[in-house]
Amino acid sequence: MKPVALSKARLRHFVKLHQKKYRDGEGLFLAEGLRTVRELCLHLPEKDMLVALLIKDGEAESACFAEPYGGKVFVVTEKECAQLAATSTSQGVFGVFRQQPLERYESEEKPEQSLIIALDDVQDPGNVGTILRTAVWFGADAMICSSGTVDRYNPKVVRSCAGSLFTLLHYGVEQLHEELHRLQTIGYSLVCSSLDGRDFRELAPRPNKIVLVIGNEANGISEAITAQADFLVRIPHCGEKAGVESLNASVSAAILLERLTLG
Amino acid sequence: MKPVALSKARLRHFVKLHQKKYRDGEGLFLAEGLRTVRELCLHLPEKDMLVALLIKDGEAESACFAEPYGGKVFVVTEKECAQLAATSTSQGVFGVFRQQPLERYESEEKPEQSLIIALDDVQDPGNVGTILRTAVWFGADAMICSSGTVDRYNPKVVRSCAGSLFTLLHYGVEQLHEELHRLQTIGYSLVCSSLDGRDFRELAPRPNKIVLVIGNEANGISEAITAQADFLVRIPHCGEKAGVESLNASVSAAILLERLTLG
Repeated sequence: MKPVALSKARLRHFVKLHQKKYRDGEGLFLAEGLRTVRELCLHLPEKDMLVALLIKDGEAESACFAEPYGGKVFVVTEKECAQLAATSTSQGVFGVFRQQPLERYESEEKPEQSLIIALDDVQDPGNVGTILRTAVWFGADAMICSSGTVDRYNPKVVRSCAGSLFTLLHYGVEQLHEELHRLQTIGYSLVCSSLDGRDFRELAPRPNKIVLVIGNEANGISEAITAQADFLVRIPHCGEKAGVESLNASVSAAILLERLTLG
Repeated sequence: MKPVALSKARLRHFVKLHQKKYRDGEGLFLAEGLRTVRELCLHLPEKDMLVALLIKDGEAESACFAEPYGGKVFVVTEKECAQLAATSTSQGVFGVFRQQPLERYESEEKPEQSLIIALDDVQDPGNVGTILRTAVWFGADAMICSSGTVDRYNPKVVRSCAGSLFTLLHYGVEQLHEELHRLQTIGYSLVCSSLDGRDFRELAPRPNKIVLVIGNEANGISEAITAQADFLVRIPHCGEKAGVESLNASVSAAILLERLTLG
């Protein structure tokens, strides 16, 4: 790998990708950590979606995977790493990628089975990334984010989904209830996770086409969307009284995704 | 509530609880955030396990729940809050509590069914807190932590378990494999989550007494413990090839806890 230094202007440009407004304006995002960046590179939908790889000077070993991307590799100093890093565990490896073009889910093949996950104002980046990663594992077809959901190109989201961001179609919508209504009109059933729902094990046989909605960490799913639901389901606790009020949002999502998929 | 100011010495003492060594030496821990602190207070095993409540001056509303604890409530300034906070969302509410006395799990009643969760070097505080919270929800009997697992009194763990730290027996051990062996000799089956295991749905009928082991985020379960396992189980992905290498540790734990409990 031929070491190419980073110009100050380019460094400034990349560092600004920590800001959502700048990310959206440029259609780019910044990823950090060896594993995350490597996985993103492995699943690039189009070669030109990798804009730059930035690797700390002297990290020859981690740089191996970067070899096929020759022209796009830059060497960065320790000080530049500190400016680029959002977490303390960047390991001196960063990637700048293009965002997936905004789309809405349109199935051409009219599949018999389909599962989409929708996030209604999920705010914690770790939760959004973990839900995306779990949805990929269980073969979901898409993830839809409400406008109040944390930006899925936030560096912590990118990190939490372990580089799987390119392996699932995901998009944001201004009015989640309208998009859910559109999906209902084309045959999807709306399953909402709610502490007031009925035991999810009673949802049998499961509908073939499902949108699973996960709500905000503190307030759950908004009233408008709850009213629109075909099924309200809850995950029962054990014992007479739970020792904790609720489950974490990404845990609820995982249990329901697994049950709806593996049965 | 009568406002009592915090002495400088006491503030220094409480701030030092960010360090594990100091926490262990004093047998105390620091919790932050209204919801977390309130839940911890609701589930106090003994009244004297609450050492102090610290509430930002002017937060009359959040202070309501503190009324029964009159003598232990201190008013803190904005500046003192910043010193006490490990996260940016402390909301100006902190609690200092005594740690659960260290024990090992000894069942007196010889229950027919029992589920214990063991963490083999789980490093992310968010994962440990989320696993504890999920274990409480599904009525686990105890949580055991290996010496390489992040301290369960770390402020981020306390926060991630949403105040459920007092509702589950948990303890650390120097040699996890020895403690697991002890449990095996009293009738527990060791179920280890592993990418090389067999489909967890084949584990039927489930053993009545189970220790579920969750491994390190990057390296999984150590070889010694894998060799000792009665069952190695994996959560299958959907489709021919998964779009992501693995599931998050707290997600795997949640899915397995749910299946082992609800069937």
